[in-house]
Amino acid sequence: MNTADLGLPVDVPSTALFTDHYELTMLQAALAAGTAERRSVFEVFTRRLPEGRRYGVVAGTGRVLDAVENFRFDEPVIRFLRERRIVDERTLAWLADYRFTGDVWGYPEGEVYFPGSPVLRVEGSFAECVLLETVILSILNHDSAIAAAASRMASAAGDRPLIEMGARRTHELAAVASSRAAYIGGFATTSDLAAGFRYDIPTVGTSAHAFTLLHDSERDAFRAQVDSLGAGTTLLVDTYDVAEAVRAAVDIAGPGLGAVRIDSGDLLLVAHRVRQQLDELGATGTRIVVTSDLDEYAIASLAAAPVDAYGVGTQLVTGSGHPTCSMVYKLVARATSADPAEPLVPVAKRSTGGKTSIGGRKWAARRKDGQGVAEAEVIGTGPVPAALAGEQLLVELIKGGSVLSRESLDVVRDRHAAARAGLPLSATQLSRGDAVIPTEYV
Amino acid sequence: MNTADLGLPVDVPSTALFTDHYELTMLQAALAAGTAERRSVFEVFTRRLPEGRRYGVVAGTGRVLDAVENFRFDEPVIRFLRERRIVDERTLAWLADYRFTGDVWGYPEGEVYFPGSPVLRVEGSFAECVLLETVILSILNHDSAIAAAASRMASAAGDRPLIEMGARRTHELAAVASSRAAYIGGFATTSDLAAGFRYDIPTVGTSAHAFTLLHDSERDAFRAQVDSLGAGTTLLVDTYDVAEAVRAAVDIAGPGLGAVRIDSGDLLLVAHRVRQQLDELGATGTRIVVTSDLDEYAIASLAAAPVDAYGVGTQLVTGSGHPTCSMVYKLVARATSADPAEPLVPVAKRSTGGKTSIGGRKWAARRKDGQGVAEAEVIGTGPVPAALAGEQLLVELIKGGSVLSRESLDVVRDRHAAARAGLPLSATQLSRGDAVIPTEYV
Repeated sequence: MNTADLGLPVDVPSTALFTDHYELTMLQAALAAGTAERRSVFEVFTRRLPEGRRYGVVAGTGRVLDAVENFRFDEPVIRFLRERRIVDERTLAWLADYRFTGDVWGYPEGEVYFPGSPVLRVEGSFAECVLLETVILSILNHDSAIAAAASRMASAAGDRPLIEMGARRTHELAAVASSRAAYIGGFATTSDLAAGFRYDIPTVGTSAHAFTLLHDSERDAFRAQVDSLGAGTTLLVDTYDVAEAVRAAVDIAGPGLGAVRIDSGDLLLVAHRVRQQLDELGATGTRIVVTSDLDEYAIASLAAAPVDAYGVGTQLVTGSGHPTCSMVYKLVARATSADPAEPLVPVAKRSTGGKTSIGGRKWAARRKDGQGVAEAEVIGTGPVPAALAGEQLLVELIKGGSVLSRESLDVVRDRHAAARAGLPLSATQLSRGDAVIPTEYV
Repeated sequence: MNTADLGLPVDVPSTALFTDHYELTMLQAALAAGTAERRSVFEVFTRRLPEGRRYGVVAGTGRVLDAVENFRFDEPVIRFLRERRIVDERTLAWLADYRFTGDVWGYPEGEVYFPGSPVLRVEGSFAECVLLETVILSILNHDSAIAAAASRMASAAGDRPLIEMGARRTHELAAVASSRAAYIGGFATTSDLAAGFRYDIPTVGTSAHAFTLLHDSERDAFRAQVDSLGAGTTLLVDTYDVAEAVRAAVDIAGPGLGAVRIDSGDLLLVAHRVRQQLDELGATGTRIVVTSDLDEYAIASLAAAPVDAYGVGTQLVTGSGHPTCSMVYKLVARATSADPAEPLVPVAKRSTGGKTSIGGRKWAARRKDGQGVAEAEVIGTGPVPAALAGEQLLVELIKGGSVLSRESLDVVRDRHAAARAGLPLSATQLSRGDAVIPTEYV
């Protein structure tokens, strides 16, 4: 894959500078000390879920594969590092030839995770692995946070479709990744054209209050919209008086009007009134879309209302209170040479101040009960118990530097729906609680 | 400016798809109805500050200028819009020629703002202005949220430098914008190399726990680091036992050791102990850097501790509880033609459900008391009172489609420091409160 394949509108010629300064200084010191080539294993995991959440959602893995493949120190980057004296010439020469040649294993994208789950494992020389820390964490911490919020919203919405419309509330490129993560979590469509372009996610949208205000009257605006977009369009009915707008909408578009959108007010009350009015006007097939500061709780509270679709913005792209995960990238084992035959030594921070972790290269499996419902996340460093051999979670993603395969977002989305469905029922309750299954170390 | 000037590592050939689908459908309908060329004024403002905050910080304006200049519908974008049938051929032809030809006024970047402040005003035809909504809001909502958190942290840190190190906790490109916004808010440096590359922000960093764990002993790791990076480096002392690490650090680097970093534990307690130990070892000039889940409150609580610098990650890039602002982009006035001589008609949403706004093209000024301290944000639509003529906040940024000037980040950073210093003292208290000055409409 070359950089052009990453696609417009965001062409990322290299991901090598999505890196913290200290990764390069560690590399320089390790090259000088002769320790840079020691065989090493890094793992990505989180010590806890965001407060009150019952499960996490792995998202961003596909973007990580792109980032690793495009992690190259080209000439302008080398020149920058030299001019700013960030590392010495020996290190620059090493970086100029950089290609990741190691292996990456991980939870397949869309899977759920729990505290301690080794969601990604990166193996190779210390030098080649340590450099990937920041870009891998940026992607997984962001995308997984958004997907987790999306998943809860999708549970709350049931069969009703969710529209992602948060682009205006987050960084313009975080917005594109958010649309992708939302789709994985169960959203149906996005308003973000860049997400449609880059990831082929279906895009939707019709009009804003500005369109109504532009025209001499609301009726003029509705007529202009219906003339151009057809009676199947969605008319925004809360610029002036909702009841008057609904009457005008059906009058102009006919009873075949596609939908009306309500973007303010008491949505429960207004949706009931609008439904009744639409039905009285014969527009029994006209749908109602609501879009005002919704989160999973507001969506759940509208379950009994005559609402046909939800548009969600701010709360989706900010992770509904948890805009990032706390995933970390830790060295868990290393040898004292590059020799693959030399056994790995488990390593871990041990100071008393917290942030300790468990050393050793880990496997993970999800133990199920007799009905096939998950009952524990089992993590270990020794041999995998025979009973769990078929339930292992980590799959190989990159082998010897080559990406083994890429998945469509629909495959990932279906995987997430299946993974969530395999959790105990209380996983999807919105109230605060602990992780829905315990993590067991063996 | 062509796209190459936007610089690596993120080459954005066009910003035109950072746009919600409905902006293009509104354009199509307005073109068909003959209303697309009506002279229009859109304003960006927020109805309220994030809960408890005393002031907002305008950040992202420089990025908005780049985005507007690079808002072009090139061939691959047009092809995408055609294949997905997002708009009709007439609209595609119009988009292919799109260049913004209007005017943009705004609060200068780094200024503070309050509820209702018209932080940006975009004037031109409805068609050319409506398309810019999403990308402008994405940038301002994200960057201003980060800058506001940074500004509070900078107040709390006083003269001690702040290091931005949140890249791993947010989208990889949001991270670059976050470093920029943090610098505007008062941070001194960043760990993010892409931010150093793109915006020339000073980058810093030395080593992580992985570097210590890679080596056969902590002493080996310290020796490797000091040998390569010099005694002026910063050694991370909390991998195993802090007291032992500090002893080893001074032993290996000598009393000229640059700094030690503490990344876990009770920072107040540990900093005092480490300072005492360093002093006893003769390393009186060795600085102490702390970096563990800090926010403005933790920074303030360390004011009396012997800490020399703070590294801040998660809480900075997530806006310290407020990861986005609630800025909106609203049509506030329009004519019924393109004729500049025709007076503008104020317009505003009026439904009872909330989200109403005040119509009309606005000016804004900050009224000061006898001591030069701000006492009110004054906003109006009529003539500017003579007493406030010299205190107006909006400056012209784009005229007839051309960006009038670009500012260095240092100018913006200094402006922010001056603007904050011009507020009543209670602006920088960390406790929750209302906007520190009222907004008055005249």
